[in-house]
Amino acid sequence: MQEFEDLKKRLGEVSALASAAGILEWDHQTHMPAGGAANRAVQLEVLSKITHEMSVSSETERLLKAAEKSVESLDPDSDEAAFVRIARRDFDHSAKLPTELVSEIARVSALAHESWAEARAESNYSKFAPWLEKIVDLERQVADHLGHTGERYDALLDQYEPGMKAADVRAMFDAIKPTSVALVKAIVERGPNAVDDSVIKRDFDEAKQLAFGEAVIKEIGFDFERGRQDRAVHPFCSSFTSGDVRITTRFDRNFLSMALFGTIHETGHALYEQGVAPRYDGNTLGGGTSLGVHESQSRLWENLVGRSRAFWTHFYPSLQSTFPESLGDVAPERFYRAVNKVEPSLIRVEADEVTYNLHIMLRFEMENDLLEGRLEVKDAPAAWNAKMQEYFGLTPPDDAQGILQDVHWSMASLGYFPTYSLGNIISAQLFAQANTDLGGVSAQIERGEFAPLLGWLRENIHQWGRKYTAGELLQRITGKSLDTDPYLTYLKTKYGDIYGL
Amino acid sequence: MQEFEDLKKRLGEVSALASAAGILEWDHQTHMPAGGAANRAVQLEVLSKITHEMSVSSETERLLKAAEKSVESLDPDSDEAAFVRIARRDFDHSAKLPTELVSEIARVSALAHESWAEARAESNYSKFAPWLEKIVDLERQVADHLGHTGERYDALLDQYEPGMKAADVRAMFDAIKPTSVALVKAIVERGPNAVDDSVIKRDFDEAKQLAFGEAVIKEIGFDFERGRQDRAVHPFCSSFTSGDVRITTRFDRNFLSMALFGTIHETGHALYEQGVAPRYDGNTLGGGTSLGVHESQSRLWENLVGRSRAFWTHFYPSLQSTFPESLGDVAPERFYRAVNKVEPSLIRVEADEVTYNLHIMLRFEMENDLLEGRLEVKDAPAAWNAKMQEYFGLTPPDDAQGILQDVHWSMASLGYFPTYSLGNIISAQLFAQANTDLGGVSAQIERGEFAPLLGWLRENIHQWGRKYTAGELLQRITGKSLDTDPYLTYLKTKYGDIYGL
Repeated sequence: MQEFEDLKKRLGEVSALASAAGILEWDHQTHMPAGGAANRAVQLEVLSKITHEMSVSSETERLLKAAEKSVESLDPDSDEAAFVRIARRDFDHSAKLPTELVSEIARVSALAHESWAEARAESNYSKFAPWLEKIVDLERQVADHLGHTGERYDALLDQYEPGMKAADVRAMFDAIKPTSVALVKAIVERGPNAVDDSVIKRDFDEAKQLAFGEAVIKEIGFDFERGRQDRAVHPFCSSFTSGDVRITTRFDRNFLSMALFGTIHETGHALYEQGVAPRYDGNTLGGGTSLGVHESQSRLWENLVGRSRAFWTHFYPSLQSTFPESLGDVAPERFYRAVNKVEPSLIRVEADEVTYNLHIMLRFEMENDLLEGRLEVKDAPAAWNAKMQEYFGLTPPDDAQGILQDVHWSMASLGYFPTYSLGNIISAQLFAQANTDLGGVSAQIERGEFAPLLGWLRENIHQWGRKYTAGELLQRITGKSLDTDPYLTYLKTKYGDIYGL
Repeated sequence: MQEFEDLKKRLGEVSALASAAGILEWDHQTHMPAGGAANRAVQLEVLSKITHEMSVSSETERLLKAAEKSVESLDPDSDEAAFVRIARRDFDHSAKLPTELVSEIARVSALAHESWAEARAESNYSKFAPWLEKIVDLERQVADHLGHTGERYDALLDQYEPGMKAADVRAMFDAIKPTSVALVKAIVERGPNAVDDSVIKRDFDEAKQLAFGEAVIKEIGFDFERGRQDRAVHPFCSSFTSGDVRITTRFDRNFLSMALFGTIHETGHALYEQGVAPRYDGNTLGGGTSLGVHESQSRLWENLVGRSRAFWTHFYPSLQSTFPESLGDVAPERFYRAVNKVEPSLIRVEADEVTYNLHIMLRFEMENDLLEGRLEVKDAPAAWNAKMQEYFGLTPPDDAQGILQDVHWSMASLGYFPTYSLGNIISAQLFAQANTDLGGVSAQIERGEFAPLLGWLRENIHQWGRKYTAGELLQRITGKSLDTDPYLTYLKTKYGDIYGL
């Protein structure tokens, strides 16, 4: 097995460089002073160039081929065989991309992120537009290098959700759209006051929000010895190994949900990463298997757990005593309803569960149009606003609350958004299965027992890292491929109850 | 000049990787959760291996030779000629060190730092000893690879203070020792109550200490748009370019000096780095020219400025109003005397100006003995304590306050300490010259005018980065080589006044 060990050592070095770049990106978005931006772009460009060169070098290819031979006789389900299989997939993907293109993307996206942050702060799209222009062009090149049979989107999406196609995304949206639209319609008909969420828009001291959020996620299972939380413009989770997983959050003094559910959401991602088997640390099988599965973990904790009646039966007394002035007069049920208010709105990350996927459809369509040249960057804000009107009956008052709201495009992550909707659907499919396997998950949550659910997720998903694809995991766990039924049932049941439909 | 540009590009990439490693080290000591240590060691090992390989590769050598040819006809004082000259010095230094040794040091020191921090927290030398053993062995190998004519110390010191020898260090100590010892003796004879420093050992809220310190360094000239301050076990300054310079500090609620003067000290380093010409950013001429010159900047701001009567004439009213309960009854002169109390003590970083260099002599001698095999690692704590008894008449109550107090050995930085004493001496030589050139620096400081002094330092030292060596700078500025007289005059005048000698 010397061949296997040699490949593992080599790819361990590649992973170390990639996670070093990850630290630089984390620093970039959390602590770096403004004056560091220019050098950070150079650092990331050089690192990505070297990482890419190493990962596609003839030496790596030679080691990969030798390792492939050496594991031929092993059980395909062994760690070694899986390692080599995923290493091959990574190699073939990277080898299609010229190093110059990869490092150019790293450089441009570092600078673009800076411009996006400024543009968003000033609600000034023209500051970001030239960078978006560059990024769309670079992403087209990526898609064309990776190869596709007509839709560039397929190639980009595959990087985040191996095996998924734009057509699958459309099918997924087709399956959930009728129920979603009908639900939204029925809820809107109940009038804007059917659920009153004014109580979560009262005054909530930031330091207390932080302390409460950290107490909640510690209780759920976030390990602060192997992670930390910081502030950032846009919340995210970065993992460097299972021993170092970092989340970020942001606060709104007059909107409790932002930090609270944002923190629980990122914790869902972090629990996945902290739960990957340590033997996979710092190498090919480490980390989450796909963004869809990743998002299933964040949405499961944020929504199916964090916005459930059971969760607040357990946590509401301590929340209430943290904010006696703002919540002292608010009964638990009123709070539960408030955090589940459904309302067409402008900002994706604050959207309720029912309207959320409409935000994703909008982005999916726009990305597609930008990539295929059906939409110009200069016309994108107008297109955004038109779709917002069509789907939500709303027009953003400015671009900060419109096209500039998300960080993804500044990071050259086109093709990423559909994994959010995929995550919603998988989260419900998994939760239903966990409930069957464990029996009465809600009752456990009500008693503040999170270990059974977390243990089930660790056992069935987290520990495997990248060993199994999303589809393989779903088959292993539920005996089925992607199934939208549990998600639709979940939505109809929960919101039927809240809105008395 | 294409040859020059090619070399510059190559070395810019090397610098980017080195500063990326710098960020990882900064993160390691400020924010990294404990679980990240193992992967951090791998990241730093791989990065240092690649950085070293790139810096000594045949391609770099080829570019260097071509660039040397291309600048032959230029003014030797031009940036281009200086760039190539320093690049050659760096190349020759690095080329002597095998890549495996360099990456082994990176790996070991990352792990050793972790063990040192634990060993210090528990005051348990045995936890650190095996790492120190490894580090001494590695540093011997470094010295032997770099080459020396008998004393390994020469080779190690030269890395921090180009051109300086162990014999120069001895000569420097010989020049300052008689005055230092006589001063200490005279001061000790005045009795322990000649100066009362109990007032700075009262209660000082940490958050207020932080706010006051940051206000002070902002006023002095620290640019928070191009830097930041964090907490760390051991205070330090890291610079990645002139646009991103970070300092750290630590607090003692019952000892005001620790954070206050620690912050001003690190700010001295940071002002140097923030003042380097931006055209040198991210390449060979960026950063400080030597550790001695660096330390001259930190000691100048910490001591010659920060512990002067003039400084507190300006700042004391606001300090007093920050801590009315602890300082309301303390007159300015009493405070000035308190922060300048001379007393043989255990901890180097808290030592007064008069005894400080004795701490350095101790470390210089011990490092020498360890490197030459005259002292075994297992016997080092006893040797430390014996020297403490000899120089200070004190015995550390535990190793945390003895041999484990400094971070340097855990970072494999043997040969580094003498640059602290060198910095003391240079700081006085520069301050005397600044005073001559500007006229009445003290009066300016008293009025809160720091711009003239900072401007003088920027003009004469900071902007030049690594272009001139320490010796060249001193010649350019003062027309002399290193001169201990201004330092001795400074000590005698200041402490003669305070202690009425």
